[in-house]
Amino acid sequence: QNTQKIIVIPGDGIGPEVTEEAVLTLQALGAGLEFTFLDRINADRYLRDGVALTDGELEEVRTAGTVLFGAVGDPRVTNPDYARGVLLRLRTDLDLYVNYRPAVLLDERLSPLRDESRRGIDCVVVRENTEGLYTGVGGSLRTGTPDEVTVDQETNTHLGVSRIVEYAYGVARRSVCMVDKSNAVRFGGQLWQRVWRETRDRHPELDSSHLYVDVAAMKLVKDPASFDVIVTNNSYGDILSDLTAELAGGLGTAASANINPVTGMGLYEPVHGSAPDIVGKGLANPAGAVLSAALLLRDRGLKSEAEALERAVRRTVAERRCTPDLGGTLNTRQAGEAIRAAL
Amino acid sequence: QNTQKIIVIPGDGIGPEVTEEAVLTLQALGAGLEFTFLDRINADRYLRDGVALTDGELEEVRTAGTVLFGAVGDPRVTNPDYARGVLLRLRTDLDLYVNYRPAVLLDERLSPLRDESRRGIDCVVVRENTEGLYTGVGGSLRTGTPDEVTVDQETNTHLGVSRIVEYAYGVARRSVCMVDKSNAVRFGGQLWQRVWRETRDRHPELDSSHLYVDVAAMKLVKDPASFDVIVTNNSYGDILSDLTAELAGGLGTAASANINPVTGMGLYEPVHGSAPDIVGKGLANPAGAVLSAALLLRDRGLKSEAEALERAVRRTVAERRCTPDLGGTLNTRQAGEAIRAAL
Ligand SMILES: CC(C)[C@H](C(=O)O)[C@@H](O)C(=O)O
Ligand SMILES: CC(C)[C@H](C(=O)O)[C@@H](O)C(=O)O
Repeated sequence: QNTQKIIVIPGDGIGPEVTEEAVLTLQALGAGLEFTFLDRINADRYLRDGVALTDGELEEVRTAGTVLFGAVGDPRVTNPDYARGVLLRLRTDLDLYVNYRPAVLLDERLSPLRDESRRGIDCVVVRENTEGLYTGVGGSLRTGTPDEVTVDQETNTHLGVSRIVEYAYGVARRSVCMVDKSNAVRFGGQLWQRVWRETRDRHPELDSSHLYVDVAAMKLVKDPASFDVIVTNNSYGDILSDLTAELAGGLGTAASANINPVTGMGLYEPVHGSAPDIVGKGLANPAGAVLSAALLLRDRGLKSEAEALERAVRRTVAERRCTPDLGGTLNTRQAGEAIRAAL
Repeated sequence: QNTQKIIVIPGDGIGPEVTEEAVLTLQALGAGLEFTFLDRINADRYLRDGVALTDGELEEVRTAGTVLFGAVGDPRVTNPDYARGVLLRLRTDLDLYVNYRPAVLLDERLSPLRDESRRGIDCVVVRENTEGLYTGVGGSLRTGTPDEVTVDQETNTHLGVSRIVEYAYGVARRSVCMVDKSNAVRFGGQLWQRVWRETRDRHPELDSSHLYVDVAAMKLVKDPASFDVIVTNNSYGDILSDLTAELAGGLGTAASANINPVTGMGLYEPVHGSAPDIVGKGLANPAGAVLSAALLLRDRGLKSEAEALERAVRRTVAERRCTPDLGGTLNTRQAGEAIRAAL
């Protein structure tokens, strides 16, 4: 088995705290991975030098092909150029068009839902990750005045929509639910509808359904276990995946993979953000970062190692050897050590 | 007390079923209202004549100034021009810039949340109702081909953002949470941020906070009782208000007011849609339509009548004299009669 090179971008806030636990855990597994830290990519540098991500860093990431990512965001930075320049640029420039966000209930007591509703939550949001409303295309007129008018453009392409819908059908176990707002957002909506119908007809082996995004949000809360794969655009995927994460036990354990299934490149990150309010307090939950590392292992063909990680996290949570957000009393480091001890 | 003229647009699906109960209930109150039914505005006519709403109908509505609306939408109609041509046109052309969507837990057993989480849900989504992503501005290139590219434009104006944020601060009891995605959707996001900060500084008597929309969705599920007024754009308001409705006991009871606080015009509609799957089965819950009628009464200065309606709905739900979605055994008509008997 060859050594694989992984770029680590810890980022901001609790990003470095949880990423360190994920790296230590991967090292404990002995999976033959080699880590290169790009820890200068953070808000401090952006505030000092105005640099989000350099072209050289982007090329270094492209060459390695695999990134373990912490979090991006800092209360001192209000300029959207920063988050856009780091995370959204990596997604776009590496063409990581799939944002794969599984939500599995680790332990029933963690869900905010009633008994009847929370059983069996096990779904995946497949979020389009390179177009839609998050491209940054747009502008403003009379900026900063009482007559300002702004435009942000939602762009959808047949290429972008068809590859994400096809991916969703490829990973589904039982069913695919396509979510859009084609009754109000007409042009993109019609394109998603057309592509989805064509793809659905090629996959009669799977149940296919469609929901408007407002109804989908409602139905996720009412009956989350009825969903398998949800495929949707960048904006709705962002919202619905935070919702499924919370329903399945909280942001602390939610993992995600930003991938290009054709080139094999991937960026793996917990769904939670930089959480500036708990930085340095030992309260950050390393589970989301560790489970993101498990997704990385899976995509690198290390399936049994990935399963070992997932089992270890599940066991520590069940035994309450975890951080306070999951009902435990451990700090970040101790929770990481508990996972490693459970391997 | 003068007779006030109300236009009734029952619309599609269960719209006519629930609207009839709302009208009968308003009549039972004897509030001096006079009803004009525009029941030709529906999907049947659109399918037959291609007409969504005529200019004459729009003017009739404008002259009356108040509409009780059922629902719009039909599975036979896939063209977005229909829903857009009726409901979105009324909102836009009458400049009903506030979509006021309260969510109050009628009965604890109705919430899908656990005990700790569901207590005290009592919030309002104040949704911008005339701009954002729902203006219909955009287009597509190479439509219907494998090279299609679509654009839907999200437009925000200082006028539109400032009047909705100001309205939200005007109706808040404790706090206002502004929701946007200014870390990714830059131009509109920056405008919302600027207007919100200015408005917040003029209202030190209220708590102000900001959440990104993904985090807001998560926090609503985790701790809905912490919210009072949520103010946000058309798209996020659409999604979050279905979420709050579900958390507070389901779409069946959710009411909304589309209003222009300056001209006094208003369109009142249940948040639920046309629900084609249950049409004609007596399963439609009239509570959302009746509570929307209560919002109408409130805006027409008939506060004690509005409260009587709200009390009656609450009592019938508590006594399970309601439709199956709320745990009762009554059909639509019987549930309406139960409300009228409880007046
Ligand atoms: C029918 C549809 C266009 C409408 C909307 O999204 O505005 C509905 O969902 C609503 O929320 O009133
Ligand atoms: C930081 C932000 C731009 C990002 C996004 O919305 O894509 C984050 O919320 C996420 O979901 O990964």
